[in-house]
Amino acid sequence: MFKATIYVTLKESVLDPQGVAVRGSLQTLGYEGVKDVRIGKKIEVILEGSSREEAEAQVKEFSEKVLSNPVTETFTYELEEVVSCASQ
Amino acid sequence: MFKATIYVTLKESVLDPQGVAVRGSLQTLGYEGVKDVRIGKKIEVILEGSSREEAEAQVKEFSEKVLSNPVTETFTYELEEVVSCASQ
Repeated sequence: MFKATIYVTLKESVLDPQGVAVRGSLQTLGYEGVKDVRIGKKIEVILEGSSREEAEAQVKEFSEKVLSNPVTETFTYELEEVVSCASQ
Repeated sequence: MFKATIYVTLKESVLDPQGVAVRGSLQTLGYEGVKDVRIGKKIEVILEGSSREEAEAQVKEFSEKVLSNPVTETFTYELEEVVSCASQ
């Protein structure tokens, strides 16, 4: 059993309207030191795989094809072996 | 200048309908090894602060009060000093 943590973030060149809105809210609330906010996703996936290589290949594939939009987003991932779901 | 990375995730006991939907999609697409998916947020904040302690206090405060809902979510954060925005 493996646990993959995938971080999907907008490319630097892509405008992040959600981040702009949160930055505005924080500044309005008095956090004037806040200069920039960008919001991405953290996706935790528990998957079965016969080997680390197989699990990693699957994670790479579905992160690129399903979890992110390669036109506007990039992703990074971490993969760790877990003994059972209960151990996370 | 500091860069804070805040991870906001649903508490373990809270149902994650978005994660359930993504799990279903992945399984339908042939990734049958996928057993569980949970989706959270990764929020990057660039902020000015006269000291690390001051920046950290602000990050803790607005993460709890603004960026997360303490009833259903928990957060963790990392804080690093950056030389300028261009260096991120």
